[in-house]
Order: sequence, then C-alpha cells, then structure tokens
Amino acid sequence: MRNIRLILAYDGTDFHGWQRQPAAPTIQGCLEGTLEKLTGTPTPLYGSGRTDAGVHALNQVANFHTECPIPCPNLVKALNTLLPPTIQIKAAEEAPPEFHARYGANRKTYRYRILQAPTCSPFWWRFVWHYPYPLDRERMAKAARFLFGEHDFTSFAAAEGSEAGQTSSLEVCGSEMRVCNGDSKSKVRVIYQSRLFWRARTSLLVYEVTANGFLHHMVRNIVGTLMEIGRGKRMPEDIPRILAARDRIQAGPTAPAQGLCLAKVEYT
Amino acid sequence: MRNIRLILAYDGTDFHGWQRQPAAPTIQGCLEGTLEKLTGTPTPLYGSGRTDAGVHALNQVANFHTECPIPCPNLVKALNTLLPPTIQIKAAEEAPPEFHARYGANRKTYRYRILQAPTCSPFWWRFVWHYPYPLDRERMAKAARFLFGEHDFTSFAAAEGSEAGQTSSLEVCGSEMRVCNGDSKSKVRVIYQSRLFWRARTSLLVYEVTANGFLHHMVRNIVGTLMEIGRGKRMPEDIPRILAARDRIQAGPTAPAQGLCLAKVEYT
Repeated sequence: MRNIRLILAYDGTDFHGWQRQPAAPTIQGCLEGTLEKLTGTPTPLYGSGRTDAGVHALNQVANFHTECPIPCPNLVKALNTLLPPTIQIKAAEEAPPEFHARYGANRKTYRYRILQAPTCSPFWWRFVWHYPYPLDRERMAKAARFLFGEHDFTSFAAAEGSEAGQTSSLEVCGSEMRVCNGDSKSKVRVIYQSRLFWRARTSLLVYEVTANGFLHHMVRNIVGTLMEIGRGKRMPEDIPRILAARDRIQAGPTAPAQGLCLAKVEYT
Repeated sequence: MRNIRLILAYDGTDFHGWQRQPAAPTIQGCLEGTLEKLTGTPTPLYGSGRTDAGVHALNQVANFHTECPIPCPNLVKALNTLLPPTIQIKAAEEAPPEFHARYGANRKTYRYRILQAPTCSPFWWRFVWHYPYPLDRERMAKAARFLFGEHDFTSFAAAEGSEAGQTSSLEVCGSEMRVCNGDSKSKVRVIYQSRLFWRARTSLLVYEVTANGFLHHMVRNIVGTLMEIGRGKRMPEDIPRILAARDRIQAGPTAPAQGLCLAKVEYT
C-alpha cells in the first residue's frame, strides 16, 4: 500500500472549512471525492489539521493510502485537472508507511494579513482583513513579542462548545496531544515565533506566528487582541495578564477568517 | 451639474464584461444601479471603453453627471460599501464639465499575464493564463518589438460581426475616431510601447502594450500570435507580414480573457 503525501494550497472563501461535511462544500470533501474518482476506491485523506470556513492555506499537508499505481507527477496533474481552481496540488510524493500528516506535524506557521489601505483591492479582498483605520504598529509588535515562549493559551482558545459547528480544540489540532505528554486537556503551547511586519508597498500589516500547535481560533483571537492594542484600547503589557487569567473573556474578539492563511507545516 | 471622474478596479471573472446588459451582471450595470441607489436618480456612467467578459481593470476611468451633493471622499466610501468586493472605487474627483471618459482618452495600457509555473495558484487563477509548456521568450520579445509604431491592425482585430454579443470594434473604443482624423472605419492605431518581461520570482510572463486605442480583441489576438511564436510555430519576422495582410485569418487565436487587465488610461 502506497502512502502519498500532498502539499496543497487553497482559497478557503467558498468552502465550509477543511473538514468533510455531509451537505456543504469542504476542502477535505472535495479532495476525497476527487481521489475516489481517480483511484476508483473511497480514499480517506488526513490533513495536518482543520482550517475553519474562509481560512486559506499556502502549504497545507495531507496524506492518503492507495493501491493505485499512478506515479506522483501524474497524480499532481490529474488531481489539478479534476479539482476546482480554488484548490491546487503543489506536490505529491511517496511517504514512509508511518507518515501521518496530523500526528507527525510538530510546527505550524500561520500568517494573518490586515490591509491598511483606504479601499480594498478586488484582487485582494478574499485574502485580507480590510481595516482602514489607524493602528499603532509599534505597540502591536511589542504585544506580539509577549506571546513568545511556552504559555497556557486558554484565554486565546475558543470557549469549548460555545462555537457553532465546532468540536473541541483538541480535535482541531491533534498533534498537541503528543507534544503535551499525554495530557489531552492541556492548553499549553510553545510559540517559536510571533512577529508583526509592515509591507509599505502593499499597505499590508502581517502577523506571523509559529507554534508546536494551535488551539481552535487561537490565531484569530490573538489577532483580535493585537488589534485592540493597536487601536489603543489595551496596552501591550496586558498580554501577560490575559495569558495568566486563562479566561477567554479577557482576550479580544475573534478576527475574521479571511485574513488567515496556513503558511507552513513542519515535521521532524 | 457636477461631473465626477471615477478611477476603479475590478475582477472581471464573474461579470459579463463592462457594458450594461438587460439580464446579466456587468460592471457598468452594477455601478449604474449603485449610483441610482445613492443619488436617487438614474445616472448613466461613461467608461473609457468596454472590457470583455472576464477581463479585469486596475485603473479603469469613468465619469457621470449628478446633482447629488455628496462630497467626493464620501462618495468613494459610500460606493465601496454598496458595491460587491469585486469592484473597487479607488478615487472620485470633480472633473471639468467637458470631461468625457471615453472621448478624452488618448492612451491606454493593457497588461496580459501568462503563468509559466507547473501548477496554478488558487490565489492567481482568476488573473492569469496558465500555460505550463515551454515558450521561447526571446523570440516573443523580438516579435513584440515589431508591433511598435503606427500600423493598420486589421489582422489583429476581431472580424466584425463574427463574435457573438459584440458590436463593431469602433464602438468598443470610441476615442480612436478622433485620433484617426474622422476616418471612422480606420483600423490604424499607434503602439507606443509593446514589451514582454519575465518575473522569475512569480513565473509570470507579462506582455505590456500602450496605444492610442485598441480594436476589439486586439490585445488578446496579439498575445495569441506571440504565443505561437513562443512555441516555435511562427517566426518573429512573421509579424510585419501579418500586419501587411490586413486579414484576421493570418494572425493567431484569441488568448483567454482572464489574463488581460486594463492597467492605465491617460488623458491630455
């Protein structure tokens, strides 16, 4: 049995997130349907983690097992021909039998784009949060640095059961169960990189964060909080206090999905 | 009566071109509907020229007359709030009473993007022609230079009446009637710039052309011909012969609409 690893990109705008659903278009559902068409057999696909409705990916990783003999370069071509243009297979390669896109992932990088221009380009609106009001980027960058390191991110996680259509944060990102040494309830994560940068030419303010795993809505809740700091509603120094509270109510609102993109998944 | 000049951008993918149509979504139709909602009066809008279904614009120019007192900066905000995200008003300004977006335009620049990567990004597919096969860019660049200057472009114009849903090329770009000294049948145009450049980082081959006016399908027919030269089917030196023939049959096929973008419109 072959184990095939896929690297893929998608525009999440028109999908109800990654995870297969009976009556709504999803990335996983669309890919599994296409794989079944191609191989003639129902073919479960394992992603590195779910992404929510409207969230994009530049380099999502997934794997599937198959007896189908199509060589990898032809698989890429055949899948791209059958898939809608909003999903692109960037690469397919033979993986060792033990490779699992979800359980093996040990670092992920997300990027969140905030467009600071007065109006939003029709070429960009799907991929940014258009926020044309003033923001103090220095304060936001300072706040972002406070998130670096190992913390309990309960305050930045979706309150369990409170978000429609979502199961617990642990199912969203299965890899954490291992890095947290079997404590399946832990909301402790390690952030390796948390930085804000400004692209003057395109008026894009970009937040980039790398961690060993993310709780449900974690990046969007961090961004929502950074925005309140940028608007002067909170201080950068509030971050340690919010983390210590372990209470979702203490952090800012959830930023819109469309600005978020899964940029990279790393494996050991 | 105020005369307002608009600069606007649009993603043409989901529109049946610029020109108002009774039963299909068009850029002009959508804008006129929104202007009527905002001003309370039917408000005809004049564009610098039509763009075909699927063609985009980065800086289209249009104007309209109104008694409505809303200041220009507020007009921009109000229009962008009411318009779909695929149409963006970049600027609105008071224009002299004699300004007409179509008759005053004396130079236009179009850009055509060909994606040479093996697969097409879900973030780019709306705006490029994905052509993953080899192309001889040197030959194409040489051919592009042969188009520079004043020529009769009959060979690169849509054969009149032959394209469904389209009227004559003269109506598509009204400004030419003036630059051609009243000879309303002339297909002579002046190309001020015709160049090909390669963006290695994004694997985009870009054709940029500036002229005093364009015949219907002219840019797409030029690109279709350049592609045949790039594939080795024709020689760069065929261009002068094709121009001299004044026969649409002599040129290459029409390149797909989605790669084309109206980049700039200039006025004296």
